[in-house]
Order: sequence, then structure tokens, then C-alpha cells
Amino acid sequence: AFRTNFLDMHPYDQAEFFIEIEPSDRMLIYSYLSPEELAAMMEHIELEDIQPFFVEMDLNYASMVLGEMATDDAVDILNEMDKDKVVSYLTIMDEEEADEIKDLLHYEEKTAGSIMTTEFISVNKTQTVKETMVQLKKEGPDAETIYYLYVVDEEKKLVGVLSLRDLIISDDDVKIAELLNENVFYVSVAEDQEEVAQIMRDYDFLAVPVVDFQKHLLGIITVDDILDVIDEEASEDYSLLAGISDVDRPDINPLTAAKKRLPWLIILLFLGLLTASLIGQFEETLSKVTILSIFIPLIAGMAGNTGTQALAVAVRGLATGEYETDGKFKLILREAGTGLITGTVCGLIITIVIFLWQQNLYLGILVGLSIMATLIIATLAGSLIPLLMHRMNIDPAVASGPFITTINDIISVLIYFGLATTFMGLLL
Amino acid sequence: AFRTNFLDMHPYDQAEFFIEIEPSDRMLIYSYLSPEELAAMMEHIELEDIQPFFVEMDLNYASMVLGEMATDDAVDILNEMDKDKVVSYLTIMDEEEADEIKDLLHYEEKTAGSIMTTEFISVNKTQTVKETMVQLKKEGPDAETIYYLYVVDEEKKLVGVLSLRDLIISDDDVKIAELLNENVFYVSVAEDQEEVAQIMRDYDFLAVPVVDFQKHLLGIITVDDILDVIDEEASEDYSLLAGISDVDRPDINPLTAAKKRLPWLIILLFLGLLTASLIGQFEETLSKVTILSIFIPLIAGMAGNTGTQALAVAVRGLATGEYETDGKFKLILREAGTGLITGTVCGLIITIVIFLWQQNLYLGILVGLSIMATLIIATLAGSLIPLLMHRMNIDPAVASGPFITTINDIISVLIYFGLATTFMGLLL
Ligand SMILES: [Mg+2]
Ligand SMILES: [Mg+2]
Ligand SMILES: [Mg+2]
Ligand SMILES: [Mg+2]
Ligand SMILES: [Mg+2]
Ligand SMILES: [Mg+2]
Ligand SMILES: [Mg+2]
Ligand SMILES: [Mg+2]
Ligand SMILES: [Mg+2]
Ligand SMILES: [Mg+2]
Ligand SMILES: [Mg+2]
Ligand SMILES: [Mg+2]
Ligand SMILES: [Mg+2]
Repeated sequence: AFRTNFLDMHPYDQAEFFIEIEPSDRMLIYSYLSPEELAAMMEHIELEDIQPFFVEMDLNYASMVLGEMATDDAVDILNEMDKDKVVSYLTIMDEEEADEIKDLLHYEEKTAGSIMTTEFISVNKTQTVKETMVQLKKEGPDAETIYYLYVVDEEKKLVGVLSLRDLIISDDDVKIAELLNENVFYVSVAEDQEEVAQIMRDYDFLAVPVVDFQKHLLGIITVDDILDVIDEEASEDYSLLAGISDVDRPDINPLTAAKKRLPWLIILLFLGLLTASLIGQFEETLSKVTILSIFIPLIAGMAGNTGTQALAVAVRGLATGEYETDGKFKLILREAGTGLITGTVCGLIITIVIFLWQQNLYLGILVGLSIMATLIIATLAGSLIPLLMHRMNIDPAVASGPFITTINDIISVLIYFGLATTFMGLLL
Repeated sequence: AFRTNFLDMHPYDQAEFFIEIEPSDRMLIYSYLSPEELAAMMEHIELEDIQPFFVEMDLNYASMVLGEMATDDAVDILNEMDKDKVVSYLTIMDEEEADEIKDLLHYEEKTAGSIMTTEFISVNKTQTVKETMVQLKKEGPDAETIYYLYVVDEEKKLVGVLSLRDLIISDDDVKIAELLNENVFYVSVAEDQEEVAQIMRDYDFLAVPVVDFQKHLLGIITVDDILDVIDEEASEDYSLLAGISDVDRPDINPLTAAKKRLPWLIILLFLGLLTASLIGQFEETLSKVTILSIFIPLIAGMAGNTGTQALAVAVRGLATGEYETDGKFKLILREAGTGLITGTVCGLIITIVIFLWQQNLYLGILVGLSIMATLIIATLAGSLIPLLMHRMNIDPAVASGPFITTINDIISVLIYFGLATTFMGLLL
């Protein structure tokens, strides 16, 4: 009865249950379920959590489960395991399955190759609708999707596509050649996964074929995996903006959370010390005009805020591929213009307010000018730095929100105290 | 020839071309294409751009195009238009289409109802596979998806689901009753779209049925629209973190960009003035111990950074629904613990560094204690504020990155100067 009730659940719900129970209960589940049944559930467990389960399974059973899983998912799991463990699984596994997995094991992370699966339906032009339906009944259960059929020639090169929809509304003896759409959309195996996601979103595909440089059909990418890609990429950009290595999985303890945040915080601490020592250079100015220091957080804060805004626009633009061609230069020009406008507006406002408040026109002008210069430069820094890092292929972490903010802190206090020291005579 | 070449393109590519050309060329396209052909293209134009095209079309043609579009997409467009314009389109339109649209017009934004479409395939238990195939051939072309068939009873209540996959591999005379899965997953029409997206991502559905409280089948939501939802929601959270009303569409001019950012910047400017006036209260302390001011950016910056980290985790958690049940209190406890750890570590480091650098133990301890207290409180503020706003249903904008940062600026300088003033004797 347990077996039936368990299998009545959706594999995702099975997985949610499975990860909560005791190891001994998991052993029971391994003994109750066939490798195929367990495989369906395993496809819904998060990659970070899955390894220990395979380790605790019997080696034979584990390799059968891996063999029954969608090849893309099995590959993801094996890619996280030790080499010798992988070898032993593959040795035991059904040879055909093992070969499919081996083909997929070596694609670079975050490429089309790394998220594709080889379980697709391919047909050829000369088949009839009826023959194809028979083929679907046979191959359907193992295919990742049967809703798109890919048409290949004798050399396995992709020549067209038809949807199951097209097939269903056609008569039995019609040939595939008459139905196929030769205008088939495909992506290269080395294509960035984010690019693939963009394509599927724009074109509303449920799957997209993946080819090599000679247009041999290598695999397909299905929309369910693209949902994960979009989420993963968005979360990555979001983490970058927040300066935290991984915002997800909030169910961790304080120590783990602190470990994720401390590296950033400590680096920022030292950058902050640098700012302090730079302001220290202006100690004379400060001791003469103490009031200057009350505007430090205002100026530094505005620099940080405007820099973060510009950074967000730039990172988002890089993610959506908006700047692929000549857009980068245009972006920088645009940001310079934006900084000029926001800087002028904010600078004027602050000059007037400080003049009214402190009855000191020069102080107002000093802070206003500093805000203006700061906003222009900070806005530019917010867009230039991520674009440069991207160009130079440097880890984007150094273009994250807190770094930009701290760099802008430094720039802003240098501008502010530089101006104040230069025009000291007017302030005294 | 133009017509054929144009229609050979994917509707998305047609749309990309269409939005670039001159108005007079668009008129040609309207005259070349049937309403159905134009409708397929219109479904791929972004909602923000689409209105002017309908305005420039002949009224009759425009209502036919709207009628031919997927109902969910037509409804999205009409929801952006003036009431009287909508009435005139619906009056001209085919009555059946108009009724379907009217049914969908009044669902609240961002609910399941607002993204569902009524063009689904419903079958009943007594049909045979063969009868269902015939039905598919007839209804298929207009349906949003034919890959899931929803089984309803005489009252149109949802009782099961089967996939086209199940149908295809079955014999002609099998009854639907034998094939259907009664364990059908559905969402309520008032469900949050983000929740629906989460479900489709977890369960890998291509579509999900939408029901009212009596389980009447009202519509379906398809995965292509969920891709857009995930992207839209992620971009929203991202914009919030950056303090910018809309990070997307970078191809705008500096003036438009400045307009999007200035409201935030001006509010932050006044919050910055508040910070300045608060520090002003400590002018006496500052004039006695000038060196205090050099650490202002360091302390305020660390408060901002840690607050942004905590905010990011909280906002992301709210988005993924992690805190639905009792998780909120746990999150706050976790953040308090995290703040305590990061605060202690950073506080100790800074105390030692400042002692070595300035040869002033008391100054080191003062800055260290301030950093420690600041990090704890700023971390808590970063998680408490968004959670409270969420609880009170307040516009999350007030819990955005820059606001949290600026509030933490204020908290941090108050702590710092409060401590400094209290222990002034030791510093002199
Ligand atoms: Mg397999
Ligand atoms: Mg992979
Ligand atoms: Mg789309
Ligand atoms: Mg997959
Ligand atoms: Mg998957
Ligand atoms: Mg990315
Ligand atoms: Mg319609
Ligand atoms: Mg809608
Ligand atoms: Mg999934
Ligand atoms: Mg739709
Ligand atoms: Mg759509
Ligand atoms: Mg949201
Ligand atoms: Mg700051």
C-alpha cells in the first residue's frame, strides 16, 4: 500500500517527502521502488542535495537509477562526483546508456551542450505519418519530449522540424517530407545557456535542437530545464548586485550564512579603511571646517546609490545580450548623459537647501558641485566597470554592488575634500 | 513575394522587423496579411510597444486581429487601452471571441486569472481515443496547447488530465476514463502568478489548469507565458534591490533614464540631509576629535553592504515563498545570528587594524564596537523591513536597496557618534 500511495504522488512531491525522512526509511524506498520509478523522483531533487543519496544506494541499483534518468539530469549529477565513482557507475551501466552519458559528460558548464539531452525523436523525410505514429508509440516513453520531431538526413544532419500537432492533424499516408518545416531553429552546442533561454522565451519554443558546426543533431534542450536556467541566471545577477555569493537556500544556519557573506564584508572593510586613510590626508581641512564632515554620508551615499542604479542597468543589459554589437559605447554615452542630468538636478537642489539651512552659500555650492561631479562619475563607474570586467573576462564579482559602492565612496570623498581644500579660503 | 518571404519568418522575427519599419510600410503589411497572420505576429510584440499599432489600424481589421490572437494576449492588450476603445473593439468582434475576452478582462493583475487563456482542449470520460483524436484535429489549430487534455464532468468541473503522449500510445477504442490521471494538479484563479511559476518550475508542467472555488475549469496557463512571468518577477526584485523603477529597456535616451532614477535619488538626497543634520548634533564631539570623521564612510558603508545582503536574502525568500508558514521568525533569528557573527569578526579585525595603524586602542575599540553594533542592527533592518512591508502590504519600494542603505547610514552614524560622545573622555 505504501508503494502505491507513494507512486500516486507526483515525482516532485515524492522528492519533497523523500529528502525529509530518515536514512533507514530511504533504504525501504530503495527496496520498494524500481530503478525507473526512483529515477523519475531523483530528477526532481536539487543537484546540491542529491549526491549523498547515490552514495548510500547499492552500487548496482545506483547505476541503474542513473541509467533510467533523463540523460541530461544523470550527467549533471555525475559531473559533481569524483572521477573514479563516475567510472564505476558507467562500467556497470547498460552500455548504450553509458555511451550516451559519456557523450554529454564533457561539455562546458553553462553551454547548450551542458543542458541538452540526447533523448529526442528523430525521423526522416521518407517516413509516412502512420509509420511515425508507430515510432512514437515505441520511442515515446523514453523521449524527453515527443511534441517536436526532428527531421534528419542520412548523415544525421538536421534538415527540419515538425510538431506533433502537425502530425496529428495529417492523414496517415502523408509523407514527413510534405509536413516538415525546413526553417528549423537550432542552437550551437557551445552556445551560452542564457542565450538559449532568451531564444526560447522570445520564440515560445517548448524545445530547441542543438547541433555541431556541421549541423549534426546532437541533442535537444527542453523548456523545463530553461525555467531553471532563467531562474539560476537571474539569481546570479541578483546575488552580484547584493554582494553575496548565493542568495538562495535561506534555510541554512547563521554560521553558514555568515560564511557566505564574510569574505565580501572583510574585503569591503579594508576598502573602507583605504577610504578612511584617504580622508585622513585631509585632516587639516577637516579640523578647520568641521562642518564638512556632516555631509560625508550624504555624498558617499548618493554616489553609491547612483552607481548601483547604473550597475543594475549594465548587468541586466549584459544578461539580455542588449549590448552584443555596438551597444556598449551607446550605453556609456547614455549613462554619461544620465549622470549629467541627475547630477545637475540633485546638485542644484542641495545647493539651495544647504544655503537656506546653513546660511552659507559657499558651503552649499561646494556640496552641490561635489554631488554633481560625484553623480556623473559614479554613474559612469557603475556602467564602465562591469562592461570592462565583462570585456576582460574577469570574474564579475569585482563588479558587484558593494564594490562599486565602495569605489564610489572613495571617488566621492576625494572629489568633496579636494574641492573643499582648493576653495578653503571661501569656506572659512 | 514579400508576403511569402515575410510569412516564412518566425512570428517573432516578423515582429522584430515590423517594429523597425516606417508607418507607411506597416500600412502595407496590414493590407498584405490576414488578421490571423498578423495576430500570430502581434503575440510577439512587447506589451509596452503594441498600442500605437492597433490605433493606426482600421478599426474593423484591428478587432479581427484581436479576435484571432490568443485570448490571454488579446486581453493583456485591451487591459492597457481606454474603456471606450475596448468597447468598440468588442462590439465589432465575433460574438463568441468577444465573450471569451470579456470573461478574462476583469481578473486582477498578476493572478493566475490574468495570465490564463480559455483556448484549451477539454474532453469527457466517455469519449474514446479515436473520438478524441478527431476532436483534436478540429480544435487543435485554435488551442493554446494540445499536449494536455483536461477531463471535465457534465458540470464542467475538472476531474482529470491526460497528456497527448498518453493518448498517442493507446489503442483507438480505449475510453478516456481508463487513461485519465485523476490526481490532476490545478491552481485557483486568484493564485499569485509567481506561485504558479514556482509550481510549473518544480513539477515541470507545460501547462496547468485554472479553476474556480468549485473546481470549474476556467482556463489554462502555458509555460511560454510562465517564462515571461519568471523574468518579469526577477527583474522586479532586481530593480527593487538597485533602487530603480525599471532596469529593462536600456535603449532609451538619457532624459528618460534620468526620469526613472531621479525620484529615488531626490528622496535619498533628503534622507541624506537628515543624516547630515543628525551628525550635526554631534558637532562638538567632532570638533574635539576630528579623526572620528575619517571612519564615517567605512562604518556607513559596512552598514549599507550588510543591510543589502540581508535584504537580498529576504526579498528572494519572499519571492520563492520560502517564508509562507513559520519561516519568517526563523529568518529573523537566523539574520540576528548572522549579524552577530559577521559583526564580531569585522569588529575584531577593525579594532586590531586601527590600534596598529593609529596607535590608539580606545579609537580602535570605539570603531570596532560601532562596526559590531552596526552590522547586527543593519543586518536585522535589512531583513525586518522588507518582511514588515510585505506583512503590511506596503509598496515594497520603501524596502528597496537604497532606502535600506540610507536608513542603515543613519543608524550607523548614530551608534558611532553616540558611543564616541559617551566615551569622549577616553578618546581625548
Ligand atoms: Mg537515460
Ligand atoms: Mg547539465
Ligand atoms: Mg514568449
Ligand atoms: Mg531535462
Ligand atoms: Mg529537469
Ligand atoms: Mg548571467
Ligand atoms: Mg482568440
Ligand atoms: Mg494577462
Ligand atoms: Mg523543473
Ligand atoms: Mg499565452
Ligand atoms: Mg505568450
Ligand atoms: Mg515578486
Ligand atoms: Mg553607502
